[in-house]
Amino acid sequence: MNDREFLEGIKNGAMSIEDGLEYMKDSNYKDLGFAKIDFDRKKRRHLPEVIFAQSKSDEHLMAIFKSFFERKENILATRARKEQFELLAKEMDNLIYDELSRTIRLEFEKIEKKGNIAICCGGTSDIPVCEEARITAEFFGTNVTTFYDIGVSALKRLLSSIDEIKKANVIIAVAGMEGALSTVIAGLCDKPIIAVPTSVGYGANFNGLAPLLTMINSCSEGINIVNIDNGYGAAYNAVQINRLIEKY
Amino acid sequence: MNDREFLEGIKNGAMSIEDGLEYMKDSNYKDLGFAKIDFDRKKRRHLPEVIFAQSKSDEHLMAIFKSFFERKENILATRARKEQFELLAKEMDNLIYDELSRTIRLEFEKIEKKGNIAICCGGTSDIPVCEEARITAEFFGTNVTTFYDIGVSALKRLLSSIDEIKKANVIIAVAGMEGALSTVIAGLCDKPIIAVPTSVGYGANFNGLAPLLTMINSCSEGINIVNIDNGYGAAYNAVQINRLIEKY
Amino acid sequence: MNDREFLEGIKNGAMSIEDGLEYMKDSNYKDLGFAKIDFDRKKRRHLPEVIFAQSKSDEHLMAIFKSFFERKENILATRARKEQFELLAKEMDNLIYDELSRTIRLEFEKIEKKGNIAICCGGTSDIPVCEEARITAEFFGTNVTTFYDIGVSALKRLLSSIDEIKKANVIIAVAGMEGALSTVIAGLCDKPIIAVPTSVGYGANFNGLAPLLTMINSCSEGINIVNIDNGYGAAYNAVQINRLIEKY
Amino acid sequence: MNDREFLEGIKNGAMSIEDGLEYMKDSNYKDLGFAKIDFDRKKRRHLPEVIFAQSKSDEHLMAIFKSFFERKENILATRARKEQFELLAKEMDNLIYDELSRTIRLEFEKIEKKGNIAICCGGTSDIPVCEEARITAEFFGTNVTTFYDIGVSALKRLLSSIDEIKKANVIIAVAGMEGALSTVIAGLCDKPIIAVPTSVGYGANFNGLAPLLTMINSCSEGINIVNIDNGYGAAYNAVQINRLIEKY
Amino acid sequence: MNDREFLEGIKNGAMSIEDGLEYMKDSNYKDLGFAKIDFDRKKRRHLPEVIFAQSKSDEHLMAIFKSFFERKENILATRARKEQFELLAKEMDNLIYDELSRTIRLEFEKIEKKGNIAICCGGTSDIPVCEEARITAEFFGTNVTTFYDIGVSALKRLLSSIDEIKKANVIIAVAGMEGALSTVIAGLCDKPIIAVPTSVGYGANFNGLAPLLTMINSCSEGINIVNIDNGYGAAYNAVQINRLIEKY
Amino acid sequence: MNDREFLEGIKNGAMSIEDGLEYMKDSNYKDLGFAKIDFDRKKRRHLPEVIFAQSKSDEHLMAIFKSFFERKENILATRARKEQFELLAKEMDNLIYDELSRTIRLEFEKIEKKGNIAICCGGTSDIPVCEEARITAEFFGTNVTTFYDIGVSALKRLLSSIDEIKKANVIIAVAGMEGALSTVIAGLCDKPIIAVPTSVGYGANFNGLAPLLTMINSCSEGINIVNIDNGYGAAYNAVQINRLIEKY
Amino acid sequence: MNDREFLEGIKNGAMSIEDGLEYMKDSNYKDLGFAKIDFDRKKRRHLPEVIFAQSKSDEHLMAIFKSFFERKENILATRARKEQFELLAKEMDNLIYDELSRTIRLEFEKIEKKGNIAICCGGTSDIPVCEEARITAEFFGTNVTTFYDIGVSALKRLLSSIDEIKKANVIIAVAGMEGALSTVIAGLCDKPIIAVPTSVGYGANFNGLAPLLTMINSCSEGINIVNIDNGYGAAYNAVQINRLIEKY
Amino acid sequence: MNDREFLEGIKNGAMSIEDGLEYMKDSNYKDLGFAKIDFDRKKRRHLPEVIFAQSKSDEHLMAIFKSFFERKENILATRARKEQFELLAKEMDNLIYDELSRTIRLEFEKIEKKGNIAICCGGTSDIPVCEEARITAEFFGTNVTTFYDIGVSALKRLLSSIDEIKKANVIIAVAGMEGALSTVIAGLCDKPIIAVPTSVGYGANFNGLAPLLTMINSCSEGINIVNIDNGYGAAYNAVQINRLIEKY
Repeated sequence: MNDREFLEGIKNGAMSIEDGLEYMKDSNYKDLGFAKIDFDRKKRRHLPEVIFAQSKSDEHLMAIFKSFFERKENILATRARKEQFELLAKEMDNLIYDELSRTIRLEFEKIEKKGNIAICCGGTSDIPVCEEARITAEFFGTNVTTFYDIGVSALKRLLSSIDEIKKANVIIAVAGMEGALSTVIAGLCDKPIIAVPTSVGYGANFNGLAPLLTMINSCSEGINIVNIDNGYGAAYNAVQINRLIEKY
Repeated sequence: MNDREFLEGIKNGAMSIEDGLEYMKDSNYKDLGFAKIDFDRKKRRHLPEVIFAQSKSDEHLMAIFKSFFERKENILATRARKEQFELLAKEMDNLIYDELSRTIRLEFEKIEKKGNIAICCGGTSDIPVCEEARITAEFFGTNVTTFYDIGVSALKRLLSSIDEIKKANVIIAVAGMEGALSTVIAGLCDKPIIAVPTSVGYGANFNGLAPLLTMINSCSEGINIVNIDNGYGAAYNAVQINRLIEKY
Repeated sequence: MNDREFLEGIKNGAMSIEDGLEYMKDSNYKDLGFAKIDFDRKKRRHLPEVIFAQSKSDEHLMAIFKSFFERKENILATRARKEQFELLAKEMDNLIYDELSRTIRLEFEKIEKKGNIAICCGGTSDIPVCEEARITAEFFGTNVTTFYDIGVSALKRLLSSIDEIKKANVIIAVAGMEGALSTVIAGLCDKPIIAVPTSVGYGANFNGLAPLLTMINSCSEGINIVNIDNGYGAAYNAVQINRLIEKY
Repeated sequence: MNDREFLEGIKNGAMSIEDGLEYMKDSNYKDLGFAKIDFDRKKRRHLPEVIFAQSKSDEHLMAIFKSFFERKENILATRARKEQFELLAKEMDNLIYDELSRTIRLEFEKIEKKGNIAICCGGTSDIPVCEEARITAEFFGTNVTTFYDIGVSALKRLLSSIDEIKKANVIIAVAGMEGALSTVIAGLCDKPIIAVPTSVGYGANFNGLAPLLTMINSCSEGINIVNIDNGYGAAYNAVQINRLIEKY
Repeated sequence: MNDREFLEGIKNGAMSIEDGLEYMKDSNYKDLGFAKIDFDRKKRRHLPEVIFAQSKSDEHLMAIFKSFFERKENILATRARKEQFELLAKEMDNLIYDELSRTIRLEFEKIEKKGNIAICCGGTSDIPVCEEARITAEFFGTNVTTFYDIGVSALKRLLSSIDEIKKANVIIAVAGMEGALSTVIAGLCDKPIIAVPTSVGYGANFNGLAPLLTMINSCSEGINIVNIDNGYGAAYNAVQINRLIEKY
Repeated sequence: MNDREFLEGIKNGAMSIEDGLEYMKDSNYKDLGFAKIDFDRKKRRHLPEVIFAQSKSDEHLMAIFKSFFERKENILATRARKEQFELLAKEMDNLIYDELSRTIRLEFEKIEKKGNIAICCGGTSDIPVCEEARITAEFFGTNVTTFYDIGVSALKRLLSSIDEIKKANVIIAVAGMEGALSTVIAGLCDKPIIAVPTSVGYGANFNGLAPLLTMINSCSEGINIVNIDNGYGAAYNAVQINRLIEKY
Repeated sequence: MNDREFLEGIKNGAMSIEDGLEYMKDSNYKDLGFAKIDFDRKKRRHLPEVIFAQSKSDEHLMAIFKSFFERKENILATRARKEQFELLAKEMDNLIYDELSRTIRLEFEKIEKKGNIAICCGGTSDIPVCEEARITAEFFGTNVTTFYDIGVSALKRLLSSIDEIKKANVIIAVAGMEGALSTVIAGLCDKPIIAVPTSVGYGANFNGLAPLLTMINSCSEGINIVNIDNGYGAAYNAVQINRLIEKY
Repeated sequence: MNDREFLEGIKNGAMSIEDGLEYMKDSNYKDLGFAKIDFDRKKRRHLPEVIFAQSKSDEHLMAIFKSFFERKENILATRARKEQFELLAKEMDNLIYDELSRTIRLEFEKIEKKGNIAICCGGTSDIPVCEEARITAEFFGTNVTTFYDIGVSALKRLLSSIDEIKKANVIIAVAGMEGALSTVIAGLCDKPIIAVPTSVGYGANFNGLAPLLTMINSCSEGINIVNIDNGYGAAYNAVQINRLIEKY
């Protein structure tokens, strides 16, 4: 219903004024008092809700999960500590906790997967961020292929994987230390790169500032940057592009 | 030709050893001494060459343009000063200089355009960066629609354009000052956003650091960041996604 | 008594020289040795004393609270840990600890409330800072209405509350991540905004630096900034304005 | 007209559907192509339009001034260079350029002034920022009293003015170097302080970062911060508060 | 003995060549293997040795204290944790631990005191740094007067003490938050100020960077800055000046 | 006259109430409108007035110089451009401009010199800052000895001067690049060091931030820091100490 | 075998196509799934593998050590916690843990040592970084001489060691605080200096940023910088140079 | 002559006391007043003097060049503007100015070259820094091979040169933008890399900070960093290593 149809509905009485006010406010979300949950999001943005668990209080997290549990809707929480999972698990079945990616999932309906995303990283320390991206992308209905420990300090490892990497619709490049991985991959591929700096490193790495600056200043074209350690955001952006290419 | 086919060609004599060495070095670029120009780029990366004119010496810029001019290939230079254009124009016809976007173009073959990108900005001061993006995207064969001066401090202007903006395959959001534009657009659309912070501002803006941080930390999903004032890079990334969606 | 009256008092003997020296030093505070408590503050600045508990030693905090307890004066402590409350509670009745806002209150006289302040935030993680502001503003005698979880990434939630928000004399906008909330609210209202960046976020958020810069560089007018996580300061500033508008 | 009245108007035919669509888009601004000018702003935000001239192209600035000139509406431009004024003055009468504050004014209707704002600064180098604030505040219809060169390194000067300063509804404190002025004034007054750091200084001043941090971290309450050198913004915020106190 | 006298001693045999080599190396320190302790320091620099305990291993700290204990020489350790004291106290008598200043002292010879230093701070949270300075200065043989909680946000407290403060030879001004204390004191006195920023604060205080910048950029003259929280260094510098004034 | 004597004077009529009000305001400065000149400063702070010319407008600078010229009082301006001198010289005789130190002097009474300050620097590029310090210190009545180009990268040069340097009451150590000079000098002397970082350097020097941090973090004791390039401030601080030692 | 020999081998059948594909991929590493271990490294880069233990999961670290243990190859792990050692020691003999340097070693073949490296530091707190460098250099087959606690604040200690230091092929200079050690050593020697800033310090040291900037901006030539606390990297770089000088 | 021989010489009269004092001061440099020129440097450090012209005054630069010119010794000045050259050329013959590298040379004796250094850069904008390094290294007696425009965004260019690059004793890697070049080269070679970040770039490059951090945090070993744009320093360090390898 567009605005003209809406106004015509008001004019001819097909919609009451009360409903019209409601329409203008778009109040289709559940108000938990402290939070307004957006059940229409999947319809509007094509992707289900994901919760950032890190700074949620126990009560808030429980209330949010329960409201999904009761509606039997899928939900994913990222940056979740094991204690948060254990708390939720006391009151809900079917929760899955993945320690490496620090995610909690509730999957009522099986997720169909389309298209393909490649997730690459330079060293084993970057794997948790990669796994957050992988689980998110799969939760969003996308196939994922992973290419771990192919850092540019040993170029042969990367070169031997590059033909496989190029087959994906979108490439997520995760790198800490100096973050040169995305530059080299972007120079070798013609697919969009989502680059994720990680806080892996020490000294003048400044908790990921060094690879962030590397990625922003890359001499290779085609690099799209997200926040430090933001595996979730990289997956979101990659899935969004993948969905448009696969036209679902 | 893949590597197996290559080795079989060597084995059965279809390719000489000299050609094989050439193949392994992939020497298909012209060496100007100070620079190695990549004529195959269009075939390999699907997009023609673009020159970053800002830090090129006059001699280097002239030599590069002439090598394209002689091959009658299209070329675009960004961050070009008017004096650079005037110098080149003494020796080549058909050069087009656009003052607002600071670009020089040489277009021998007409550029066919596919798909559509929306370029939005908050204030009139961001327009030069937008125009660099527009001219680049059009040079790369993409239709562009522009939405200028729709900053979030006067939300109505943005809201009245949002339905048009959403029709594009990819949205470029250009913003200086605090850079909140990309957050609001991303919250209203389900298309990939390429966010470009600009150095427009003063004081604690720190030449674009403020909007850069805003974009990296956005609470909206779907935002892909490029460097401050990097209209060219935003266009490149947007075109790459547009090309995959339009499948050309 | 102004300075002329004071000098005339000295001249005509209405005030002794000893009292005059006292007057010139304005020694009307209690000296605890390590701290000088300002009992006249309420009269002079119109607002009662508030203690920043975070870096106080146990002995100092106890001595300060007792000096108010003995005078039966209201007092509020912010940034208080539960252990600090428990320590004080052993020696004083009537203490109220609020865990979310981390405040300890001692309220002997009932607080009359005038005018109204709106406190808004983008996400549930910002609520502790909001609550510090709310409890402070109420302690200072102001009515408060809260609008939580109305972040700009889901603009409809904010738009559906904006008419209510505008009714307040002053608006406190609390936001972490990229902090765009204050820009959007300021663009929609004509009331003073006190903007509070929070340290909610990660990566290139730099513990609240990102939203702080956003607020300082906002393209919307009417935004007044306080320190990161400074809910107390925002309330103080808002109450000060509210008090002048309400003329009490 | 509120939303309910609007919908009732549609229902009973008092408003046509075309007008209704217009209402929902709030299109009451003039579209110059590159910019959308907001003539309703004075009604909606109670203050007339002000133009930030610094980054405007000559053509844009001329077009904006002319559109006001033709409607005989007052307009103020800040951060204007003398060459910009001279350009505009060729095509419009009655323009006033003030070199110290770098402002251009067009005043068709006489501005009535209400309430009072005090503008203070520490040293003579801060005066241009003060004057930008003064001219803006007067343009917005507020009386201004100025207190220049009362820096805290010579405390007597400040103390001898403080009784006068306190009489204003709002105090603007402008300071470069280390910016301690706002702390001392706030400790002596019970009026809202709008603190403006300036870029006056050298070395580890970092173009105003030092006084900005001073003001944000002040141990005095009641300080509201705006961007470095932002005299205009300070005036806007002060006028907004003054207007609410004076109830016009 | 100057160099000429030394060479004459060699020439005429008053000093042996072996002694001469020793003289040229100035090897008068005890080599503990991991550290070279400087017993001559008191003679050479006029002040006894002080140990920075924070980053010392237990073994190293014990060995250093014992070497002084055996020679019955006074020693002071700063930044010492209580556990370090308890460890040392098992093997040595007469150790004094002061918890507030985090210092361990061993005083065999009574310390005579000359001249006077004033130590001032703004708030109670700065007292530990003040006490580190006080104990160091007294250990170095200087009288100390302290003026705590005289911050500039309540100027009367500072003004009522200023005449006493001015009597000292040197003034140490310790301040966290925005650190304006040193500016105001320096404006009122004609004695050298040693300014110590502290890490007391939060948010944009950046662990003491804010008051450090304030002090470096002060518009008052006569301020000498030392590192954040460096109470020891401030005392050292103040004592050095006091010693020259008192000529001991 | 102290406060008790003042009040007794009022009481017994030795001082009129009008004079008393004047006393309480300490209004002994000349008000030029834009600036309040402090003629009593020399009496109060023992040192004559110095003007920071850099950010003064021509009119302000002229007015200030004239007010001293008319009273035949000495004055010094630092950070003065040659054009500023030429402007002043049109209306006043006896002005001396020193190009290297960028100072303008007006000396009516001959300056008597007491005590001694040593000024050292590492490289020839630091000499302008040294000369600003030298001329200031001499204007303030102190003898100065200079030791230029004795940087630590060629340690012998420094060691051969150190005995002379140590004879001064106070040592000013000026250094750019990495600023290690003050550390080495402080390790070899027992006199107060005023350390001045300079903006000499490039790349990661960050306009003097590198030597500033070096000086603040020095492992040598006895180093007092002033702002980058602040030769004037270093001289002020050194003279203040010298004056106390020499007891004038 | 160079590329021409390789292609001739393919052509004449001396190498099969399968082997040729293998050759082109250079797959000579063991793939553990999460990591690709590089056993050829010693041959290719002349130095054995070293593991950065800090961010490795227990499982990953165990798997890596076991793969070396099974091949009886030497391996060194840096930044290893004692718990990591204890875990590994349950399943492998011959492991050596060094607490000061936080290293774990497995040495099957005795390491022959050539050439010599000097490792110097200013204070005892820098020793852990020195020891990481020492153990790495010895593991890489180099003799090491150490010179600890020779900081520039007591120059005599350094000068008395300098003749010994100069005998090494390469000098590693490790320093925290302000990091001036490398400047002074470089000024006295003509051997390459590898400078390592450490995070030893406090306040404006910013976790090693201060000495890092010192070293980068040094006025002495011949200084090569590595990351903060990077003892391992300094040893690697020093050994590489030593190996070339010693021609092994 | 070592110290023992020196003292024996004094004892037995082979050296006079005056000569001995001279020996102890090592006064073998020419004192120009403002600078102390080090003619022995070549003997002591094995490399001739190089002047940093950027911040030298005209008089100082002239005096320094003349003192070398008169002794007919070679000298090189870096960071020299053309105007500086033209000034010197008026009074001295044989001066050579190279505009690209901004160097002035005076070569009286022909320079013999030994060993070999490779200088690589990513883009044409980095060539001026490379050329400063090349001219310095050749002035210091080293052969240089250059590899320009082999940036990692087009990896094939780099890979086709790598076998030649590896033949050098030392490799200088110069890179702006994100500076990934040194990481990739270091991963492919076993020779020492001297990495030079350049200030080429824009936006979040921060004048070379981005590539500096990249190089410091590289995941490849064997990288030695010098300051931003410091081509001279890189050459110095490379030559020092080359000289030790070539044993001249």
